[in-house]
Amino acid sequence: MSEPQRRPVFFISDGTGITAETLGNSLLTQFVGHYDKRRYPFVLDTTEADHVVREVHTAAEHSEPIVFLTVMDRNVRHALEGLPGIVIDLVNHGLETLESALGQTATRRYGQAHGIADAETYRDRMAAVEFALEHDDGQSLRVLGLSDVVLVGPSRCGKTPTSMYLAIHHGVRASNYPLLDEDFDAQVLPESLRELHGTLYGLVSSPQHLHQVRTERRPHSTYASLEQCRFEISAAKRLFAAHDIPYLDTSTRSIEEISTVILGFLHRLNSDNRFVP
Amino acid sequence: MSEPQRRPVFFISDGTGITAETLGNSLLTQFVGHYDKRRYPFVLDTTEADHVVREVHTAAEHSEPIVFLTVMDRNVRHALEGLPGIVIDLVNHGLETLESALGQTATRRYGQAHGIADAETYRDRMAAVEFALEHDDGQSLRVLGLSDVVLVGPSRCGKTPTSMYLAIHHGVRASNYPLLDEDFDAQVLPESLRELHGTLYGLVSSPQHLHQVRTERRPHSTYASLEQCRFEISAAKRLFAAHDIPYLDTSTRSIEEISTVILGFLHRLNSDNRFVP
Repeated sequence: MSEPQRRPVFFISDGTGITAETLGNSLLTQFVGHYDKRRYPFVLDTTEADHVVREVHTAAEHSEPIVFLTVMDRNVRHALEGLPGIVIDLVNHGLETLESALGQTATRRYGQAHGIADAETYRDRMAAVEFALEHDDGQSLRVLGLSDVVLVGPSRCGKTPTSMYLAIHHGVRASNYPLLDEDFDAQVLPESLRELHGTLYGLVSSPQHLHQVRTERRPHSTYASLEQCRFEISAAKRLFAAHDIPYLDTSTRSIEEISTVILGFLHRLNSDNRFVP
Repeated sequence: MSEPQRRPVFFISDGTGITAETLGNSLLTQFVGHYDKRRYPFVLDTTEADHVVREVHTAAEHSEPIVFLTVMDRNVRHALEGLPGIVIDLVNHGLETLESALGQTATRRYGQAHGIADAETYRDRMAAVEFALEHDDGQSLRVLGLSDVVLVGPSRCGKTPTSMYLAIHHGVRASNYPLLDEDFDAQVLPESLRELHGTLYGLVSSPQHLHQVRTERRPHSTYASLEQCRFEISAAKRLFAAHDIPYLDTSTRSIEEISTVILGFLHRLNSDNRFVP
């Protein structure tokens, strides 16, 4: 075979497996290697566990597997004992440390990380998704006033996906105010927008990055030209400075990173890191 | 004080802290307690680390803190050594196990979990968000044909937030086909939709749950009546059975759980669990 041998990697969970996969992948990126990754979510009973055990054994005949586990259920954990390969249990160390320090036995309920742990919180998140969807771009200033945060910036600097992420994950009612030629010409923001100071947050990009992103969308347009991107970015920064609006360059940042910064800006979070209006 | 004493909990990371918070919270829900949670993302140098150390020490004067760490950077880890309280390092055990098993030293690059690890993958995710936004509800059948998955179901069964989640996290181009009276009356789906078999996935709810959700939106309407909800859910299930469309009851499931099930249905994922069209 000319292809490099790929080492099998298993993510096994009695929940969605999202934590196992996220943390497991994060650990794997710290090393050089080629992997064949397989995700086994919702392993909720010993029948399912036995099936996974057979899969890992079959894979182990060819190459030593790496196994990441986030399993709370005692019976499932027991059924998975003695798996071949490099087995990394991502929850057991923490559970045992907490059990001993708190003098309590863990309840071992599965799926607490990404299930509906709290119905009210979950409903708020879903309501925020709807809010973000209904009020994406071109909304009235009245609607902006109902928002927890209003993302302001030139087109294609990440306003929309960031709004969605903030809504889906944190229940933040986010809306957008796209900066257009009329704002750049006026060199001030509309008064009704300025009144929302404290909920306004700016997003910019590097001119080069914006040029690239816009070119993918509308090649050879004035809109995508490096000159236009340079103009819009520097005009946006002048507006933010004039109105004391904090802003972030999104060129090299993921929506997770951008959202984390904005949550810090809002800093009206409850102890579950959920936004408190 | 009549309020229960809240134990301080710190989530400390040199990335977004999303993994620390998700896994840490998941562990905490296995125990009984009241917590005052604080998140310290982007702790990227020893100056920031020293600041956090002081915060933890201050908190420890009143109540023993619990500290969850996801820090890759060696200098930052070193600066955080000897923190008071119950310190749970969520990455070190995995890193050391892999270092020893793979015979490699971890690169200890920070922020690999929720940063832009791969620019192309990230662009695909953002493009999918736009696709989901542009094609949410009421889209033409032509557009449905461009989708990786078409979520079919009565109004308010979770189609829209699930589409957004699949797009944001997995780059899946998801769109919706809302089931309306004309579909229920016809007792068959339009032929152009049936041709998309294999990308169609049904979402339903329990009549009681749907009644509750719709009542919040339009109280005392026919739309929200239990009778109407019963009718739509059973008519939807008959349609799914007639056309051999798999479906899921979303009443007690989070969008993370629903999405995990749908990813399993699509099972055209690459080894990074990204959708391959």
